[in-house]
Amino acid sequence: MTRKRQLASELSVEQVGEQILLKGWVQKRRDLGGLVFIDVRDRSGVVQVVFNPDVSESALAVAELVRSEYVIEVKGEVVKRNQATVNPKMKTGAIEIAAQSISVINEAKNPPFTVLDGADVSEDVRLKYRYIDLRRESMQQTFKLRHQAAQVIRQFLNDNDFLEMETPMLTKSTPEGARDYLVPSRVHQGHFYALPQSPQLFKQLIMVAGFERYFQFARCFRDEDLRADRQPEFTQIDIETSFMSQADIIAMTEQMIKKLMTKVKGIEISLPIQQMTYDEAMSRYGSDKPDTRFDLELVDISELVRNSDFKVFASAVASGGKVSAINVTEQAQAFSRKDIDKLTDFVKIYGAKGLAWLKVEEGVLKGPIAKFFTEADQGDLMKALTANDNDLLLFVADKTDVVFNSLGALRQKLAKDLNLIDHNQFNFLWVTDWPLLEYDEEAGRYFAAHHPFTSPIEADIEKLGHDPSQVKAAAYDLVLNGFELGGGSIRIYQKELQEKMFEVLGFSREAAVDEFGFLLDALEYGAPPHGGIALGFDRIVMLLAGKTNLRDTILFPKTASASDPLTNAPSLVSNEQINDLHIQLKDD
Amino acid sequence: MTRKRQLASELSVEQVGEQILLKGWVQKRRDLGGLVFIDVRDRSGVVQVVFNPDVSESALAVAELVRSEYVIEVKGEVVKRNQATVNPKMKTGAIEIAAQSISVINEAKNPPFTVLDGADVSEDVRLKYRYIDLRRESMQQTFKLRHQAAQVIRQFLNDNDFLEMETPMLTKSTPEGARDYLVPSRVHQGHFYALPQSPQLFKQLIMVAGFERYFQFARCFRDEDLRADRQPEFTQIDIETSFMSQADIIAMTEQMIKKLMTKVKGIEISLPIQQMTYDEAMSRYGSDKPDTRFDLELVDISELVRNSDFKVFASAVASGGKVSAINVTEQAQAFSRKDIDKLTDFVKIYGAKGLAWLKVEEGVLKGPIAKFFTEADQGDLMKALTANDNDLLLFVADKTDVVFNSLGALRQKLAKDLNLIDHNQFNFLWVTDWPLLEYDEEAGRYFAAHHPFTSPIEADIEKLGHDPSQVKAAAYDLVLNGFELGGGSIRIYQKELQEKMFEVLGFSREAAVDEFGFLLDALEYGAPPHGGIALGFDRIVMLLAGKTNLRDTILFPKTASASDPLTNAPSLVSNEQINDLHIQLKDD
Repeated sequence: MTRKRQLASELSVEQVGEQILLKGWVQKRRDLGGLVFIDVRDRSGVVQVVFNPDVSESALAVAELVRSEYVIEVKGEVVKRNQATVNPKMKTGAIEIAAQSISVINEAKNPPFTVLDGADVSEDVRLKYRYIDLRRESMQQTFKLRHQAAQVIRQFLNDNDFLEMETPMLTKSTPEGARDYLVPSRVHQGHFYALPQSPQLFKQLIMVAGFERYFQFARCFRDEDLRADRQPEFTQIDIETSFMSQADIIAMTEQMIKKLMTKVKGIEISLPIQQMTYDEAMSRYGSDKPDTRFDLELVDISELVRNSDFKVFASAVASGGKVSAINVTEQAQAFSRKDIDKLTDFVKIYGAKGLAWLKVEEGVLKGPIAKFFTEADQGDLMKALTANDNDLLLFVADKTDVVFNSLGALRQKLAKDLNLIDHNQFNFLWVTDWPLLEYDEEAGRYFAAHHPFTSPIEADIEKLGHDPSQVKAAAYDLVLNGFELGGGSIRIYQKELQEKMFEVLGFSREAAVDEFGFLLDALEYGAPPHGGIALGFDRIVMLLAGKTNLRDTILFPKTASASDPLTNAPSLVSNEQINDLHIQLKDD
Repeated sequence: MTRKRQLASELSVEQVGEQILLKGWVQKRRDLGGLVFIDVRDRSGVVQVVFNPDVSESALAVAELVRSEYVIEVKGEVVKRNQATVNPKMKTGAIEIAAQSISVINEAKNPPFTVLDGADVSEDVRLKYRYIDLRRESMQQTFKLRHQAAQVIRQFLNDNDFLEMETPMLTKSTPEGARDYLVPSRVHQGHFYALPQSPQLFKQLIMVAGFERYFQFARCFRDEDLRADRQPEFTQIDIETSFMSQADIIAMTEQMIKKLMTKVKGIEISLPIQQMTYDEAMSRYGSDKPDTRFDLELVDISELVRNSDFKVFASAVASGGKVSAINVTEQAQAFSRKDIDKLTDFVKIYGAKGLAWLKVEEGVLKGPIAKFFTEADQGDLMKALTANDNDLLLFVADKTDVVFNSLGALRQKLAKDLNLIDHNQFNFLWVTDWPLLEYDEEAGRYFAAHHPFTSPIEADIEKLGHDPSQVKAAAYDLVLNGFELGGGSIRIYQKELQEKMFEVLGFSREAAVDEFGFLLDALEYGAPPHGGIALGFDRIVMLLAGKTNLRDTILFPKTASASDPLTNAPSLVSNEQINDLHIQLKDD
């Protein structure tokens, strides 16, 4: 009899009595009272198979020999478990398979770590044996979720008339951005391709070509030193549209995110998503990607302390900086002097010279700097900070960016330490009106904060010539729980403005043409107004899957040194291969 | 009044009287009898807009200034055309827009070539101005079809439980295959990544990881000299499954192709698709990817002429080669001596020493070699070739591969010249039972015909040690109208067999471990039987779109020298970039 294979998790009491065929892996074997129990795992899940000498002695004999991760084939009958052995934690826990036969399809050595979730294994070992690591339940779930998320997004974009299009991977190296991965050309001696950091210019050209609505799950590359949440190659959901305003693009993206959350997480988010300018995000949260799941907001008290007797405060304000504070409500008693010293050490990491503090006790401020404040000052301060008894007030007085960075980081740390974060909450937030340019003291010139193709907001265009630092960009970032999911902008679509932008960035006319001539050309041949957004797909999956490490959302990730312990990439190659590329290795 | 933008092709007589807003490109402007007519094109299609001084003099004045490819915005009313001016060739030909206002969103220089289809433009110019080239109707259609085809395939694979998964682009260079594109590592001095020629090993590892059903639209790279139907980067529909037999995989692929043909072309193909062994394909069609839309089959007459007085035939057979013939039915009179001389020149390209011929006239063979055949021989020959009056018989006698290659090519040429091909027909064909190995005289060793991970068919495994050239592979190619759409195989899943395979390929044990140790390891930890298929997506789109050039199916393709005339990739890069990679340029 040929039996069609059935999947483990599809079996239930409805199939009791049926003759079935299973193929899969030995998840676990137990020998008990003359019987052998094997949990058989396939892509769908796990089912228990029982080998009983009363059913088949020969099957039992084979079953006694199999070990974890063997690939086996089992024929048997679905039987109901008796009440005492029903396992309610298992999807198939009400039944088991009474095995009539078993054959070993492939043996397995004892795996370097168990496939059962929760095993504590070093990441290097996990990556070297990634094919075993990926068998773990939580990894299987993550990549199913990744698949599902991709399909939901695709379906949404299909339904909205977007075309999925593929842009090249062998592209031109351009300045302005992160470091490119380069690919030496064999045909064109001394020339190089670059792997794309994003399909930015190609998607703009697709708009000039009149397609109007493009998307791609685009692989992007950055040869930068890696942090925990960076990978040399990553995937972004890349979207570009013509004739849509910033508000249109934001509204459409929100619909997409809403659908994603509903379909993948079963969570209905309410629209519109909150919007906040960059300036507001910085002054209230000390961050351009604030986590709004908790309060602990920054309060600017510069005006109150401008003339304070406490010189640290007054001089910070006088020298163009500021003083901001966080009210850690009802925690005054919980923080000892030593605790606060630790917080002081923490803010120093971010360049703060110190952390001033006050505690509210019976309506009065206490602490070493309390003496600098009159009763009236204290009242104003407490009012500004809505401070009450047992509140702990923490102050940083410094240059503006130091105040924001240190208190922003402190805010995060306190929320974590005080367990203020609801991990079931998904707080989305748009951050808008970014600065268009950033001045780099060392290079002595402006750099594009986003990229050189981002449009200034219309009202600021005229400032571009005489006051570049004040120009806001028509750019928007989508933030989730303190993580930047991605961002976008309205692009420059007029040649003159793009030329002006290159000029502000310090490009000579020749250099601009040399590097970006094809874009300037394209803008002259009927370029529509356009804009778009790119969302980090790996990070979205990470947050939806409740993971904290980006590497858990990428099938075959690289380590922090951009290598792959599984295949040993990168590796040495033959001299012939190198010679073909007209290059040679250099002893540094 | 704010009006919502409407798309050109969505307008019809149903909207007559409605006030609408259009945004798009000036496809064509005509001035006629004091009116201006502009065909406005957007992503959906084209609609005619009329500027009439009776409606708006100011709009007319602007309209008189706009030129081809300007980006404009038009407000107006949908009006019915009078019967005489209805254009049945145009989807929106029953209506036009009476313009109330127009504004120019962006101007356009006179384009280097017209966007109207059919313009004869050199490919270099088309590629340099790709953003204009892509505006053409047929290009827009091709990329819509490409999108649609991708979505149909994705949907099918989703419905069949496949997970879409992404494999790395920065991988390890491996021997055995085409030339890799290399990426120098900055972090690991002297080491290189390779861009993948296919995700072959990763998809096998995904099977070892237990996912069982994987797919990807995978970008692949080959640094080879390019032909018309090759690109340095291309996209393949990459599929891998566990526990499925060759027959299972073929049947599933057929379902996918059937769905694709139905949804994208509206053509119902009947299943199963014809299957043919490699040996049969070669002997009947002289090709491993035969176009079965026409006959002109090869007939092996070696046995008939083994003892012929015509020494050319007899000696070809005696020295281990063969004699095959094509019967070009009812064409004897159409081919002059001179015509046949040209065919002779043609087969010489493929290494044939000559082309023998005979014509059937009144039941008798005529031609310079007729005298070598007795009446009985002639009868046998005509019977074998089912030859009748006015048939032209063409013979090649040579080594087997020369006979196949030359007659295979001649068959294609004759079908084209004689117009025997029905271009509306889609003839799919499986070619199976490929040779596993090919002997390379120069290298003095065997190479994998497909790749070193392809399994021999089970019956031939034991031959691997003593008679490798006779081993057939469990490999299958899908052919459409003479083009290879792609192919697949059952993979080796047992370590011993994989080691044996490497040994046959001349790898020392150390070299095998060095290059493929991670695969050999993986096969030891519970590898399931697995196999898959990879289909060339660009080529599928090309054939479905009725194109003959692969470059018309890729948004931003490379030229034959692997460069991009649009962006000028590859390009020179800075010394700093090169230094970072621990390489230097070499003067060859």
